[in-house]
Amino acid sequence: MKKEKLPQESTITRKPFPKSKKIYVDGTLHNVRVAMREIELEDSPARFTAYGLEQESNQAVTIYDTSGPFTDPSIEIDVRKGIPRICESWIDARDDVRILEDFTSEYARERASRQSDEKLQFDVVQKPRVAKEGNNVSQMHYARQGIITPEMEYVAIRENQRLQEVKDAGVQHPGQHFGAIIPKVITPEFVRDEIACGRAIIPKNINHPEAEPMIIGRNFLVKINSNIGNSAVTSTIEEEVEKAVWSTRWGADTIMDLSTGQNIHETREWIIRNCPVPLGTVPIYQALEKVNGKPEDLTWEIYRDTLIEQAEQGVDYFTIHAGVLLRYIPMTAQRTTGIVSRGGSIIAKWCLAHHKENFLYTHFEDICEIMKAYDVSFSLGDGLRPGSIADANDEAQFSELRTLGELTKIAWEHDVQVMIEGPGHVPMQLIKENMDEQLKHCYEAPFYTLGPLTTDIAPGYDHITSAIGAAQIGWYGCAMLCYVTPKEHLGLPNREDVRTGVVTYKIAAHAADLAKGHPAAYNRDNALSKARFEFRWNDQFNLALDPDRAREYHDETLPSENAKVAHFCSMCGPKFCSMKISQEVREYAAEHGLDSDQVLEKGMKEKASEFVDAGGEIYS
Amino acid sequence: MKKEKLPQESTITRKPFPKSKKIYVDGTLHNVRVAMREIELEDSPARFTAYGLEQESNQAVTIYDTSGPFTDPSIEIDVRKGIPRICESWIDARDDVRILEDFTSEYARERASRQSDEKLQFDVVQKPRVAKEGNNVSQMHYARQGIITPEMEYVAIRENQRLQEVKDAGVQHPGQHFGAIIPKVITPEFVRDEIACGRAIIPKNINHPEAEPMIIGRNFLVKINSNIGNSAVTSTIEEEVEKAVWSTRWGADTIMDLSTGQNIHETREWIIRNCPVPLGTVPIYQALEKVNGKPEDLTWEIYRDTLIEQAEQGVDYFTIHAGVLLRYIPMTAQRTTGIVSRGGSIIAKWCLAHHKENFLYTHFEDICEIMKAYDVSFSLGDGLRPGSIADANDEAQFSELRTLGELTKIAWEHDVQVMIEGPGHVPMQLIKENMDEQLKHCYEAPFYTLGPLTTDIAPGYDHITSAIGAAQIGWYGCAMLCYVTPKEHLGLPNREDVRTGVVTYKIAAHAADLAKGHPAAYNRDNALSKARFEFRWNDQFNLALDPDRAREYHDETLPSENAKVAHFCSMCGPKFCSMKISQEVREYAAEHGLDSDQVLEKGMKEKASEFVDAGGEIYS
Repeated sequence: MKKEKLPQESTITRKPFPKSKKIYVDGTLHNVRVAMREIELEDSPARFTAYGLEQESNQAVTIYDTSGPFTDPSIEIDVRKGIPRICESWIDARDDVRILEDFTSEYARERASRQSDEKLQFDVVQKPRVAKEGNNVSQMHYARQGIITPEMEYVAIRENQRLQEVKDAGVQHPGQHFGAIIPKVITPEFVRDEIACGRAIIPKNINHPEAEPMIIGRNFLVKINSNIGNSAVTSTIEEEVEKAVWSTRWGADTIMDLSTGQNIHETREWIIRNCPVPLGTVPIYQALEKVNGKPEDLTWEIYRDTLIEQAEQGVDYFTIHAGVLLRYIPMTAQRTTGIVSRGGSIIAKWCLAHHKENFLYTHFEDICEIMKAYDVSFSLGDGLRPGSIADANDEAQFSELRTLGELTKIAWEHDVQVMIEGPGHVPMQLIKENMDEQLKHCYEAPFYTLGPLTTDIAPGYDHITSAIGAAQIGWYGCAMLCYVTPKEHLGLPNREDVRTGVVTYKIAAHAADLAKGHPAAYNRDNALSKARFEFRWNDQFNLALDPDRAREYHDETLPSENAKVAHFCSMCGPKFCSMKISQEVREYAAEHGLDSDQVLEKGMKEKASEFVDAGGEIYS
Repeated sequence: MKKEKLPQESTITRKPFPKSKKIYVDGTLHNVRVAMREIELEDSPARFTAYGLEQESNQAVTIYDTSGPFTDPSIEIDVRKGIPRICESWIDARDDVRILEDFTSEYARERASRQSDEKLQFDVVQKPRVAKEGNNVSQMHYARQGIITPEMEYVAIRENQRLQEVKDAGVQHPGQHFGAIIPKVITPEFVRDEIACGRAIIPKNINHPEAEPMIIGRNFLVKINSNIGNSAVTSTIEEEVEKAVWSTRWGADTIMDLSTGQNIHETREWIIRNCPVPLGTVPIYQALEKVNGKPEDLTWEIYRDTLIEQAEQGVDYFTIHAGVLLRYIPMTAQRTTGIVSRGGSIIAKWCLAHHKENFLYTHFEDICEIMKAYDVSFSLGDGLRPGSIADANDEAQFSELRTLGELTKIAWEHDVQVMIEGPGHVPMQLIKENMDEQLKHCYEAPFYTLGPLTTDIAPGYDHITSAIGAAQIGWYGCAMLCYVTPKEHLGLPNREDVRTGVVTYKIAAHAADLAKGHPAAYNRDNALSKARFEFRWNDQFNLALDPDRAREYHDETLPSENAKVAHFCSMCGPKFCSMKISQEVREYAAEHGLDSDQVLEKGMKEKASEFVDAGGEIYS
């Protein structure tokens, strides 16, 4: 049995990124302060300025920031008390929630009063909130009533990344949209519209006011999710809280806590109270623990109590495998890898044992009632997703998808927010069909896929096999990508695996944003490329998704500080540096009386014409 | 100044892969023995067999093997003498080459006679071969005369991976081809046809008989290239020879030696003599060294001597930047990152300094004469490739591409083999245009791209930013992918970076093969997935692209040998294992009188119908 350990200040990473500072952009409709990260840049050296100026200043780059208060040194954080509850006043101001004296869930009450050798409970018990009788507190409900909430204004400002203030974002290629329509500036009205029609969600449990609002939908930046969670045998609460903070540091937009084992309830409380992004769970994992791991012993009552327990802790979205229908289970019998979703296989076993329809399906409207009382979003699970290339896009998978579409409609009748989970393992040529079928059968509800992995033959590198698929499906319209770490199929990810997984998925999401032509996407690429061309090494590192690793790799070959202002790098050395030579091309032209790029172009074209006129075709 | 070091037996990796053995498949037309790797599998445990058999044996999986004799313990290798010269007899049997008494190149002769404190020369000097006067020894020349060479038969057998002997390869999805046509069985005749029309090449210098023949073309398996090479300041000959062997171990189909610095000639000799795959170079790098790094001092005569020097050593393909025309250079002046190709920038500087047309262009037919005397293939370099997302698909890039097409036609008039190099940095939505333009303007000559990188913002992870693009362009029809390591833009790759880069690119190439529906691609995925489902952990590792890393990651969490036969893994533990539960679903059904999958399916469908008939629609 492992020894449990609780988080301490020293185990939580708080260091800001180099040359980065936290800035806050105020709302105009509401009292919102939207956190962003601003990266300060060095001036361009004189030789690189276009028109002979002494030096040229480079505008700071503002980027989307998921790291929450942890990277703001001005905010004091006590991990035992949790981070600031920035949305609480917005929630209370709506006057449609009441504060409970105690948790509704029997299990939660039992855990809170539990005595043990180790005190694992989170100290400051925030009393849970719930919608007042007859109220629906979902963002979708507000949106459909024409209300722009502070949460909606927050995400609108957040998505724009202050791009409207960028003077010269450089080249931006036209995107290929596949049906998505991304406005040049995201307005709160646009956010409201997208939420109202179900094309986007803001996962935002009223009991998780610590999280900064964010939006998931294909007309917004592609988001990524990081999975964390301990098991019965490995990893402590301390490690998992740090993994959550660490995930958001590198760019996780949401986190799923997939903990199993003894202390799920307490682990989750520690994570939520310190989590600046929405948190998702798969409630059936905990329900299964409550029946000692025997799927056939699960009941609706135990599951229901678990949903309420987690909703009152503040879980923002629930993965619910309500589409695994009894009649679909035989479709998996001939598969290469059967059912690979944990939730899906638990439900399948329950269905077979009882010869009854999936209780998540039969109780779906009861679940909707719980969801809207806390604004928990559905993440309708793909319990029958393929676990191998061979099983991709089969009858079982697409049958379940159509049922998820049916359930989406029902949830929307309750004004409950929905996203749809997707595969899995899919070869490249079958990825687009997944996206197209999902949009069609689920009425454009946001798609949230795991990868997909584009081949099965690279355990140890499945962050890469899957990033290839994730970038593509993100481009085609997938709204959120669930990360995969190098440990997929092999073991539990450690801290470094989490970092690698998150950064890999930021790459996939960003590549998709570029391909869609998202207006806020090109700015950072262009700034980094300009820095690279001008040998501003520090700027190149600081603008990178992972500045620490970029610097570390550079320093392996050329560790001195001088090398960071050198006009060449270790790959080619001074003589062979193409960027240096390319710069010399410009300089050479300038020395010969061609004093700007335009004149250079003109002068060279004349020369070239002379050449062609004189020599004609060489191989005529 | 670094201390040079020569290779020793102990520094070259020779360990065969676990449960793998080298097999040799004989030709029927010629005396060829085609090396492949066979991975032996364990039997399926009884519970997983479909029809209640005690156990089921799993057919060994044969895979394409690039590692040469190093992984065959029965072959004795002395790194100071080089590996067996397996193609020498085929070459001599054609009776169209003569053996030279000494190197033709003055520089090569000078180096051979050079005395220094350190003896760096490779010991066994193989006398170079050259085509007899008036002869053309290129594979294209033979193909166009209707001759099926041993090289052609070798690659035909090699591409098939003995798939015709596989009893049940499991599910294979139809591919999406984008114009490629891959036959079910590759025949020597098909290879000949593809070579004759220029749609594929077999890079095979008559002076590199050590290399096993391989083919590059879009109707064959997608290939990958690994770049190695030391610089003036880092890495020794010893390290580079091991990097070459190490690259082929992980799957590099060709290697490019991009060495710069003092001992380029000697380094290359050591590499070639121990290199089981085709070797490419960029001859202008060495030419530049010969004029002390001053591009303006380059002359055709120095370059020509370098081509011959390298051709007589055995370089299989030359990157030649003959498409960088004077009139294109100004098109780069307004770019974000100018010219980023080293070769391109050297030529650009020469052109500007002399106000003359690129001498590689004006001497192109002279170069063809050299190429056909040794069967060196052209890899027409993209000197104006974009170095940033901003510069992708611009006028400079596509102008050069059209010139490369013009040069392709000229080379083909000489029966010289050609492939075309491509970018670089390209956002996803612009990748297909690259492939389409290349096919159109270069008459379907094989495309060979670097990545492309799909975003600029992830230095330290550019193997991943580029694998995303590489997989896509491979799917669209690119024939060979040049790897990118995590050190791209930052430093020189070390041994581990090479491994990561190669495996990452094997993933991209394989994902592309699956997407194209290559008949030999699915077998390994299906075998690995079956092993995964049946908890045959060792088979899962052994079938992986990188068995060592897969095993290492698994053992981090569950190190004991027992865990490798456990019917669960560390991610979920015994209670939560979906594969275990999924298997129990099958067993449960079997226990209840449903004794095979088919009956299960039938029985379950009946049950499901009952349910639907009885309960009807829940949400009607």
